[in-house]
Amino acid sequence: MAKIIKPQRLPGFRDFLPEEMRLRNYVLNVFIEVFELFGFDPLETPTLEYASTLLGKYGEEADKMVYTFKDKGGREVGLIYDLTVPVSRILSVYHQQIPLPFKRYQIQRVYRADKPQKSRYREFTQCDIDIIGVKSPLADAEVVAIIYRIFKKLGLDDFTIQINSRQVLFKLLENLEIKEEKKQLSVLQTVDKLRKQGREKVEDELGKKGLSSKQISDLFKQLEKITCDKNLEEMFSYLKKLNVPQEYVKFTPSMVRGLDYYTGPIFETVINDPPIGSLTGGGRYDNLISLLGGPDLTGTGSTLGFDRICDVIKEKKLLPNLAKTATAVLIINFPGFFDEAIQLANKLRENKIACEVYLEEKPIDKQFKYADRKGIPYVIIIGPDEVKKKVVKLKNMKTGEQKEIKIAEIVKLLNG
Amino acid sequence: MAKIIKPQRLPGFRDFLPEEMRLRNYVLNVFIEVFELFGFDPLETPTLEYASTLLGKYGEEADKMVYTFKDKGGREVGLIYDLTVPVSRILSVYHQQIPLPFKRYQIQRVYRADKPQKSRYREFTQCDIDIIGVKSPLADAEVVAIIYRIFKKLGLDDFTIQINSRQVLFKLLENLEIKEEKKQLSVLQTVDKLRKQGREKVEDELGKKGLSSKQISDLFKQLEKITCDKNLEEMFSYLKKLNVPQEYVKFTPSMVRGLDYYTGPIFETVINDPPIGSLTGGGRYDNLISLLGGPDLTGTGSTLGFDRICDVIKEKKLLPNLAKTATAVLIINFPGFFDEAIQLANKLRENKIACEVYLEEKPIDKQFKYADRKGIPYVIIIGPDEVKKKVVKLKNMKTGEQKEIKIAEIVKLLNG
Repeated sequence: MAKIIKPQRLPGFRDFLPEEMRLRNYVLNVFIEVFELFGFDPLETPTLEYASTLLGKYGEEADKMVYTFKDKGGREVGLIYDLTVPVSRILSVYHQQIPLPFKRYQIQRVYRADKPQKSRYREFTQCDIDIIGVKSPLADAEVVAIIYRIFKKLGLDDFTIQINSRQVLFKLLENLEIKEEKKQLSVLQTVDKLRKQGREKVEDELGKKGLSSKQISDLFKQLEKITCDKNLEEMFSYLKKLNVPQEYVKFTPSMVRGLDYYTGPIFETVINDPPIGSLTGGGRYDNLISLLGGPDLTGTGSTLGFDRICDVIKEKKLLPNLAKTATAVLIINFPGFFDEAIQLANKLRENKIACEVYLEEKPIDKQFKYADRKGIPYVIIIGPDEVKKKVVKLKNMKTGEQKEIKIAEIVKLLNG
Repeated sequence: MAKIIKPQRLPGFRDFLPEEMRLRNYVLNVFIEVFELFGFDPLETPTLEYASTLLGKYGEEADKMVYTFKDKGGREVGLIYDLTVPVSRILSVYHQQIPLPFKRYQIQRVYRADKPQKSRYREFTQCDIDIIGVKSPLADAEVVAIIYRIFKKLGLDDFTIQINSRQVLFKLLENLEIKEEKKQLSVLQTVDKLRKQGREKVEDELGKKGLSSKQISDLFKQLEKITCDKNLEEMFSYLKKLNVPQEYVKFTPSMVRGLDYYTGPIFETVINDPPIGSLTGGGRYDNLISLLGGPDLTGTGSTLGFDRICDVIKEKKLLPNLAKTATAVLIINFPGFFDEAIQLANKLRENKIACEVYLEEKPIDKQFKYADRKGIPYVIIIGPDEVKKKVVKLKNMKTGEQKEIKIAEIVKLLNG
């Protein structure tokens, strides 16, 4: 083992140091809590799949972004690109043993050989919820209700869950004499750019795709005055019953989503400030599972943009009480009083209080500096004076306040 | 998107359906709780690293097991083989901003292109704890205390944490006139096979490695009567102070661990029944971080064999109360009484009770069958009779017992 050069990280990949991990785990736990409250169970699948399972599913552009290679056994394999292809494989393989409806959440790292940019990484965590095997718009409403609950629980408020329906859009295009499915999807992909690129560019592109000026102006007129269909109305009524306030869910005809596979209601969550693109995206896909090689089952679901949501939580400082570390107390390693320190640590740990005894005999100011740098909220000293008086000295590292507390009362105070 | 053939899973990779995930999450949460009680914070790093970071670290055999390939940018990359190489990269890159001692836990999937066999997979979850920057055997003792706590908390009892020291072993070999470091390590690698292959085979191999019969018989004699050195004695005294009962930790001279990089105390956890190899393995490595390209820091730590521990928990049926699903109740979708069902679901969820309303109007026996297959412990019916009486009908799916309960009392009962 020779001495080697300083190792580097790959571009588009990230390290998560403890402080960042604390935020991520906090957000993740909110996700999981709400998913489970609605009866969703966890699923995990491999990071590597046969390349044939991954490729040819979402078109050439997506295929280019799949990391593929030959493994040591000569198999063509790839890193998973999303969690939808794996769940369709699961449904295909375990169809007999999975009761329907199948409500699963899946939280895993996925990989895209994309150009790295802000909030866009080559390795990122995808959080998907899906309900497989239910046609009722109640299932779509439940997915949206979960998103609403999670955002509120995270302290977010200025968000809107935009809702539309592919059926509504297809009907609109048919009225404009755009009847071929491929053409319809192509037009929708252009309209999807409205928010990012503005109306002028979208009109240009629609012209290039062969729409007449009249079709284009009619399209925009109709997008403005179009209304919900019966299915969407039913979905909105379910949302109300699920206690989702009306101001957070909005019928948004211009929101069409880029992916081809949606067949019914579609939904996206946007935040007004900062305007950073959608934080969730999903919808109903009644043919996708079978197209991906699974059984013929309907489905609806959403991806939650975990990394983006973490970024928003950070920017909006919605973590007032989250310490940089899980450790609640550092107990100073006071020369000659180590046994007392470790006895106290044992006692605190029995009472579920996370603590450290400083592991070496170093000057006390260095130990305090460690607590400060690590962000540990309290420091305890047990030295000769304290032992005599049967107390500990407790310092609040934030306020600098210092007081003596009876050993018997320290647990209560730190748990309170 | 053409209809494709039924997708398959790669050999050596695994799917985790909800019931399995429940077990894994339960075990993982015990790990994390204990890690944090001792002041460890989480760290995560990329799944992909430069191949140069991964290769040439643990010898040719290990290199053969690293999944490497060329990415789309022409970089030689690889899937991580363990979590020790990444943490040394972290220490190298973030040395300035990480306060020492650095106590981190890291739980991630790692990859080895190994032959798949029982409890041995190509993708598995590694759980590592390490204390970087502390020379005192208190750090080694803390790592062992954490392992003890976790095993006890999981309900395991017939385990032994075997402890030995590389220093003790090196001294023993020097007494036998085996003084060259490479030779010493080679001899230890053979002695490491004692438990798996038996004494005869080990003697053979030692003979082939050039040890005389006298050296071999002296080696075994000395292994039997050897005693702790001062450093190990200190470690055992710390274990006592950390409330680890003596019967769980045993000085075991014949336990030498295979890896070359250990420099001080080494530890392994074995379980007597079933005898499935070590469940944890670790030790002190005072040169490793710098050898891996990081700064010159001492370290000690352990890997917990998450997958194996899950297997043991399952075999020993140590999960008496863990349901197959997080869902506590299924509320029947009773024709004409959907609003009542969903109102109750809202109320239960507000009180943190995980529940489902069956999402379609299907025959009630089908809905019960769903609850049964999914392993949901309770089913609630609200139909015309129940609404009239202001009660719900609650069925315990395990006992079959059925009773009427006032709506006001249902939360208390399910939370109790």
